[in-house]
Amino acid sequence: MEIKEILNSFKENEITIEEAQRRIELSQYEELEYAKIDHNRKKRVGIGEVVFCQGKPNEFLTKIFTSIYKENEEVLGTRATKEQYELLKKVIPNIEYNHIARILKIEKTKERIGNIAICTAGTADIPIAEEAVETAEFFGSKVEKIYDVGVAGIHRILSQREKLEKANCIIVIAGMEGALASVVAGLVKVPVIAVPTSIGYGANFGGITPLLGMLNSCSNGVSVVNIDNGYGAGYVANQINKLAEKGK
Amino acid sequence: MEIKEILNSFKENEITIEEAQRRIELSQYEELEYAKIDHNRKKRVGIGEVVFCQGKPNEFLTKIFTSIYKENEEVLGTRATKEQYELLKKVIPNIEYNHIARILKIEKTKERIGNIAICTAGTADIPIAEEAVETAEFFGSKVEKIYDVGVAGIHRILSQREKLEKANCIIVIAGMEGALASVVAGLVKVPVIAVPTSIGYGANFGGITPLLGMLNSCSNGVSVVNIDNGYGAGYVANQINKLAEKGK
Amino acid sequence: MEIKEILNSFKENEITIEEAQRRIELSQYEELEYAKIDHNRKKRVGIGEVVFCQGKPNEFLTKIFTSIYKENEEVLGTRATKEQYELLKKVIPNIEYNHIARILKIEKTKERIGNIAICTAGTADIPIAEEAVETAEFFGSKVEKIYDVGVAGIHRILSQREKLEKANCIIVIAGMEGALASVVAGLVKVPVIAVPTSIGYGANFGGITPLLGMLNSCSNGVSVVNIDNGYGAGYVANQINKLAEKGK
Amino acid sequence: MEIKEILNSFKENEITIEEAQRRIELSQYEELEYAKIDHNRKKRVGIGEVVFCQGKPNEFLTKIFTSIYKENEEVLGTRATKEQYELLKKVIPNIEYNHIARILKIEKTKERIGNIAICTAGTADIPIAEEAVETAEFFGSKVEKIYDVGVAGIHRILSQREKLEKANCIIVIAGMEGALASVVAGLVKVPVIAVPTSIGYGANFGGITPLLGMLNSCSNGVSVVNIDNGYGAGYVANQINKLAEKGK
Amino acid sequence: MEIKEILNSFKENEITIEEAQRRIELSQYEELEYAKIDHNRKKRVGIGEVVFCQGKPNEFLTKIFTSIYKENEEVLGTRATKEQYELLKKVIPNIEYNHIARILKIEKTKERIGNIAICTAGTADIPIAEEAVETAEFFGSKVEKIYDVGVAGIHRILSQREKLEKANCIIVIAGMEGALASVVAGLVKVPVIAVPTSIGYGANFGGITPLLGMLNSCSNGVSVVNIDNGYGAGYVANQINKLAEKGK
Amino acid sequence: MEIKEILNSFKENEITIEEAQRRIELSQYEELEYAKIDHNRKKRVGIGEVVFCQGKPNEFLTKIFTSIYKENEEVLGTRATKEQYELLKKVIPNIEYNHIARILKIEKTKERIGNIAICTAGTADIPIAEEAVETAEFFGSKVEKIYDVGVAGIHRILSQREKLEKANCIIVIAGMEGALASVVAGLVKVPVIAVPTSIGYGANFGGITPLLGMLNSCSNGVSVVNIDNGYGAGYVANQINKLAEKGK
Amino acid sequence: MEIKEILNSFKENEITIEEAQRRIELSQYEELEYAKIDHNRKKRVGIGEVVFCQGKPNEFLTKIFTSIYKENEEVLGTRATKEQYELLKKVIPNIEYNHIARILKIEKTKERIGNIAICTAGTADIPIAEEAVETAEFFGSKVEKIYDVGVAGIHRILSQREKLEKANCIIVIAGMEGALASVVAGLVKVPVIAVPTSIGYGANFGGITPLLGMLNSCSNGVSVVNIDNGYGAGYVANQINKLAEKGK
Amino acid sequence: MEIKEILNSFKENEITIEEAQRRIELSQYEELEYAKIDHNRKKRVGIGEVVFCQGKPNEFLTKIFTSIYKENEEVLGTRATKEQYELLKKVIPNIEYNHIARILKIEKTKERIGNIAICTAGTADIPIAEEAVETAEFFGSKVEKIYDVGVAGIHRILSQREKLEKANCIIVIAGMEGALASVVAGLVKVPVIAVPTSIGYGANFGGITPLLGMLNSCSNGVSVVNIDNGYGAGYVANQINKLAEKGK
Repeated sequence: MEIKEILNSFKENEITIEEAQRRIELSQYEELEYAKIDHNRKKRVGIGEVVFCQGKPNEFLTKIFTSIYKENEEVLGTRATKEQYELLKKVIPNIEYNHIARILKIEKTKERIGNIAICTAGTADIPIAEEAVETAEFFGSKVEKIYDVGVAGIHRILSQREKLEKANCIIVIAGMEGALASVVAGLVKVPVIAVPTSIGYGANFGGITPLLGMLNSCSNGVSVVNIDNGYGAGYVANQINKLAEKGK
Repeated sequence: MEIKEILNSFKENEITIEEAQRRIELSQYEELEYAKIDHNRKKRVGIGEVVFCQGKPNEFLTKIFTSIYKENEEVLGTRATKEQYELLKKVIPNIEYNHIARILKIEKTKERIGNIAICTAGTADIPIAEEAVETAEFFGSKVEKIYDVGVAGIHRILSQREKLEKANCIIVIAGMEGALASVVAGLVKVPVIAVPTSIGYGANFGGITPLLGMLNSCSNGVSVVNIDNGYGAGYVANQINKLAEKGK
Repeated sequence: MEIKEILNSFKENEITIEEAQRRIELSQYEELEYAKIDHNRKKRVGIGEVVFCQGKPNEFLTKIFTSIYKENEEVLGTRATKEQYELLKKVIPNIEYNHIARILKIEKTKERIGNIAICTAGTADIPIAEEAVETAEFFGSKVEKIYDVGVAGIHRILSQREKLEKANCIIVIAGMEGALASVVAGLVKVPVIAVPTSIGYGANFGGITPLLGMLNSCSNGVSVVNIDNGYGAGYVANQINKLAEKGK
Repeated sequence: MEIKEILNSFKENEITIEEAQRRIELSQYEELEYAKIDHNRKKRVGIGEVVFCQGKPNEFLTKIFTSIYKENEEVLGTRATKEQYELLKKVIPNIEYNHIARILKIEKTKERIGNIAICTAGTADIPIAEEAVETAEFFGSKVEKIYDVGVAGIHRILSQREKLEKANCIIVIAGMEGALASVVAGLVKVPVIAVPTSIGYGANFGGITPLLGMLNSCSNGVSVVNIDNGYGAGYVANQINKLAEKGK
Repeated sequence: MEIKEILNSFKENEITIEEAQRRIELSQYEELEYAKIDHNRKKRVGIGEVVFCQGKPNEFLTKIFTSIYKENEEVLGTRATKEQYELLKKVIPNIEYNHIARILKIEKTKERIGNIAICTAGTADIPIAEEAVETAEFFGSKVEKIYDVGVAGIHRILSQREKLEKANCIIVIAGMEGALASVVAGLVKVPVIAVPTSIGYGANFGGITPLLGMLNSCSNGVSVVNIDNGYGAGYVANQINKLAEKGK
Repeated sequence: MEIKEILNSFKENEITIEEAQRRIELSQYEELEYAKIDHNRKKRVGIGEVVFCQGKPNEFLTKIFTSIYKENEEVLGTRATKEQYELLKKVIPNIEYNHIARILKIEKTKERIGNIAICTAGTADIPIAEEAVETAEFFGSKVEKIYDVGVAGIHRILSQREKLEKANCIIVIAGMEGALASVVAGLVKVPVIAVPTSIGYGANFGGITPLLGMLNSCSNGVSVVNIDNGYGAGYVANQINKLAEKGK
Repeated sequence: MEIKEILNSFKENEITIEEAQRRIELSQYEELEYAKIDHNRKKRVGIGEVVFCQGKPNEFLTKIFTSIYKENEEVLGTRATKEQYELLKKVIPNIEYNHIARILKIEKTKERIGNIAICTAGTADIPIAEEAVETAEFFGSKVEKIYDVGVAGIHRILSQREKLEKANCIIVIAGMEGALASVVAGLVKVPVIAVPTSIGYGANFGGITPLLGMLNSCSNGVSVVNIDNGYGAGYVANQINKLAEKGK
Repeated sequence: MEIKEILNSFKENEITIEEAQRRIELSQYEELEYAKIDHNRKKRVGIGEVVFCQGKPNEFLTKIFTSIYKENEEVLGTRATKEQYELLKKVIPNIEYNHIARILKIEKTKERIGNIAICTAGTADIPIAEEAVETAEFFGSKVEKIYDVGVAGIHRILSQREKLEKANCIIVIAGMEGALASVVAGLVKVPVIAVPTSIGYGANFGGITPLLGMLNSCSNGVSVVNIDNGYGAGYVANQINKLAEKGK
């Protein structure tokens, strides 16, 4: 359905202004050679398109970043390599790279609100945590980091209880058996987003073990995202944080 | 740590009133013969203890329901059989049973707030959906049911877009390949809680297929609970709905 | 059974001409040192032998390509590396290489008929799609490409409905959860060949997740080929397209 | 979008007759208490809604069958029990039950066209085969049955070659290791729809073994549907058979 | 090797008394019709043969129990049904049955020593715990029960710290995600024997989830026995308890 | 190909007598309503058709047994229930049933030759062993039973070494971890056929654990058949035993 | 038990010469620094120790090869790299390397007897086949190679039927779905040793698919060795071939 | 809770000296930038913190080693690379590296007590065994090595029986099918800690096969740690050895 057509229908009063807006939103995307950039995402789901950089061919990556940046004046890329950073820096000189989180971004100045607590069980889980941090901050949420508080020394997480209680929601990132999610969810009133990581060896099976552990948590209030998916956790946590701060 | 001890410490001003309260909460549970009823859960995590009825011996079940009911004047039991209902009715005559949701409950009159949309892909997913409905309502949330809107006829979910947009969060319940979660999450601004069900045959593998599908959703904003875990989804959705309505 | 023997039987009228033809077809292949080239495939199954290049030793590859090319004046090789291309170019100078599809071919001029729509969920699925395109075109089918129309932005595929309706059959290629196959099959009258890809991370498990999702599709009319098997999908789609255009 | 609204738009010439038809199709389904009957399926995908009976509550089943029967004057139900048959017979007296195929149906008189060959490896695979037969015949295809021709006695399938060559497409149904699909696909020019069955013991794993075997077939032209999914295979085979007989 | 032969060798001084004893031990078992009762187990591994009752035919079970009882004046049977109890009671009237632990036994009076703590995460884990209790007590160990102390209410296990510190070793029994093992092992100096249980639903997969979780524990000092194997845990714990009390 | 045709070809000297015989063998099977009885199996593979009874409908079973019995004057049926025995006894009164092995048979008097040793790890493995015994004996092999010699008491199998050394080949049947196969294969010169059983609990996974263990045996000379497949092991062992006694 | 001791016992007539021999065999191995070379293997199981080279440290490999070579005047090493060959050549100059089979060996002149047929489905399976060939020949068996006869062109294996019928046993090596084993076993009287290979892509899963397919073969007479285990198949085939030629 | 606060409480006599000590222990850890070093572990669980080196960033590793070394005058690091050794040597010159065990350590002079037997099935399992040796020795246990005694030559382990009987506990390390654990546990009175290794090929699946085998051991007294987890086994064995030598 062409926009012209929609506008005509609106002018002729066959459709309301709300319906017209919805149809236009539904029809908007930019046709690149191989990709369809979904510019109306921001209106539809509240957040602009984010680039999953892993495995994208160079030429293609450049076009997508440029297109989104032109549209939004900011852009976020996940799972980016240093090589991709160097490539993009040539065309977007002010782009920044967080090599731990593997995040590429240009971010407009914005006030961050609310409070998301991000916990890791060990130090090896930190790269995934930083991906979540970058994501949530880019979308406008404040973040509190609580790292290396795994249950092998239970006093470490218990001593952070005050911080946990201040958060609107909590991300728990753990490999090995992923027990931290259950302990944290048993201590708080707010939703816990659990991220299993592929950290561990032997029967960790690339994160299946903590994934299953978190899905079977004996505590209520735990929902789970994909293995190593710090971005996904940051996205959901930001949604919840915003609801808590501003309502729907 | 005994409560007496804590109170003494408080009286002697070694600990603040906040610290004393926290320690007392941490120490409270009722010791039944085999179980430890966690009466301070409501203070700690905001919601009282819920009984997972499946496989609980009769004598034991009666004691736990009675204890919780006495404490809270209401009680919720999940995965209950008709036999368990008839057993408990003898000691708690006003208990009610929803045989589709397999929920046992006595509920105090309460005003329900906010808006949680609960979608199912097919009619076979409805028992799990009803478990989520009962749970969310018991905890005080309003619920909108949107059933049988699977993606095989995509117009069914598209025609419900207005309802989806009103919700503070959305539960999507689906068996088979679980694709509905991705489609819904691509349409809305709020978090989607996905519940894979064991509905299907052949390579559904008791719900593993939609579980994996939902964890790998190409849409942002999806987090997942255990297979057939309507209760868990209702619990998380209620947490988010309350945050959206009342803030933290 | 020697051909001479078959011919004698035919001459003596013990077997019909149809039987003689069938027996001869059944007995024909070329014995190379290690391989048996199946030159009568074209008569038997309608399409000549295609070379799966992956892991074939160099010397062997050259012999097979040369033998098939001599017989058919064209040849198709899948999963080929650039090194294999450079090797074969020395002996068959007019050979061509599509590095995205990893296809090696020399193709006779032919008119392509019918209409196969090839959809991908994301841009990362394009190499598999291109393998399907090259295969179907080599065998004589016309192809319509519909790329990057995953269900996270459902309007992208809905806006392509007219193109979908023109096709004799549709190939849907998707990683992540593979939901696109179900949505497309719910919109059309013709068979959908689904190709799961190993695109994704975490619990994608090298394509098992979309494979299971596609096998359990809630829509009718979906059949599935192996993970990343663009060639196999192109082969089946060409069979169906030809049946639709020319009948059996 | 209401139909009235669409018709008005059409009358006012804002939308073409084709667009109006499409919008109407997209908006049509019947709202039962729990289900949404998709009456425009026949227009959209060429075939009316079929009822998957397994696990459907009695009252609900009756309503769905009645609704579809009233609309189409025929109805097909799969995975039905004898109890469900007896229930439905009371309200739809002319309904018929095939207890091997577990199919419930009322079928209008129709001419069947084309040729689908349906092969089984063993006798234990016959119930699944009969489900495919009933499905394809209901949709209007002619069927040729070739049962108990597994590869342990390879002459059994070889002696059926003439029948195989007459078919527009072939369904191969096999448990154990599922090798029959590869052998058949190596003999013919037309698509092979493979159905793995849960027949076997030990490491058959409820059909995973033949499922994997068929997905990895060394022959071209094999696509696969879910384990024990005779209905799905009959559906796809009918689509292909119709394309071959009538074109698109 | 016959005992006579061994004794002759010893008498002739070719072998020492130690060697003779070892050879005799190695050769001793009682040949029943179908089974070989290993009466020298007690000397070799310190504990007499225990009967795994599940699936044993009645006639056979009676013979084995009678044979062991005659030899040792006590006997322990695991995974026994009530029917098996009633059967055996006829021939061994003083046999006792613990229906929760599914244990059959006649036990000689003995002094129990040391201290094994047996913890469960929930009440549903108690049958497995009781199997461990019965086993360890039968072999002569004292046991301390600490039930229903799962990590969803972390204060429950923390408040038991004193009891944990008194044990020579600790058995932790948990289903769901099995996180209790990691928390306990992080609090104590002694070995933790972890028993995953098949308690849970959805992606618990009959105990695989807690099994993997316990094998991947982030705490040191955890070793694991088979799913639901209370007997095996009681056996190992008794070995360790005895070493701690009496040394080797 | 019709037999008449083959005979004509032979008479006209176009084909040799060997070729004629081979073609005739290849074309012979009896067409029942649903099954194709492979009467030339005995000539082709040396052994007549055996009936896998599990799940066969009654009417069908009777026809197959009668057909084979008429042809061979003996018949073997595996995985038979007592009900099937009672059914068949009515039409074939001299049929016998071994309820442990679940074998139905009428056997001609025959001299048994050679020596196959059949070992089990435990008493629970005996039903599978008896299936192997009945099979091998039916086909004409002598059998030596060595039951309940699992590695938990290693002296039990070591004391049977003389018997093991006399066998032409050895079947080892074990559940749990299946270690007996490795120990036996390390002691003898002849092939070991290993049969994993579904005996065990917890992480036995219906026999997957001993299946994997036997496939990964650290000893040479072990090959493996399907879980619980006593029939298959008896079949292969008989083949080897005959080769050893009579050569090819 | 020391040899001296055994000899004394024998001299004193307490043990027979057979018993003495057996005990001596049981006690013999050479203690290297880290390994225990089992020199009496040849007497016990009929074949000397073979070296699995993969992952062995260089220094260690040299010692083991030298020790075995000194004892037997020949030696066989499997899974050897070219680097290992070059290392060993320095100390054992007449050692030979088959780079396709990855076999290192020095072999004494010996007459080879009998007949083992070794079939592969494709050319990619040849390295595993060559490992089997080298193994069987080293142990003294004659071998017939039948390569590239997969079931996609069924006439290829059917035309080899005469060769198959001459063999004492047959090794079938196949990746993909592994169907060749079933077809071959349906054609012959002798045992088939099936070797699944990790050849294939997508859902081949490193050889699990053909492994499962072969274990579930619908033909009798198939037993299976580990994935890619050409050595193991050659070992078992040699055992059977020798039994057929020389009896036990 | 601050230490000052605890001390005040103690001084004011509100808490006993035991309680004060416990609270202090519970609160102590050192906050580095990213990690929380758990210095009170030694008091709580009897052993200081050990560093899992794999994947730790260089800068971070140096800080942790330095911190622990300063606190304890000794330090143990597992899964260390040679590069990490060279890095740490610059700041802690007396650090030592065992490249087979991949262990980094500085160890104070200490008397080792008791007796732990460490067995391997093959030579390839030695690196894991050496990790266990280094661990147990660092914590103060004496170790007896019994390497290359797999069950393919059962006399190798039988001849070590005397050594096995002297141990307080036994570690059994095996890949392939892991049968050695069952055989050893059937011979001794003390606990067996089983370590599955990822040694093997084909269906070993990175150690899953021996892991499952050991969990399903037919012998009593076996508990299992994670695949390749030599450190974990050494840790548990040391715990048991100390209990046996010194009691609790």
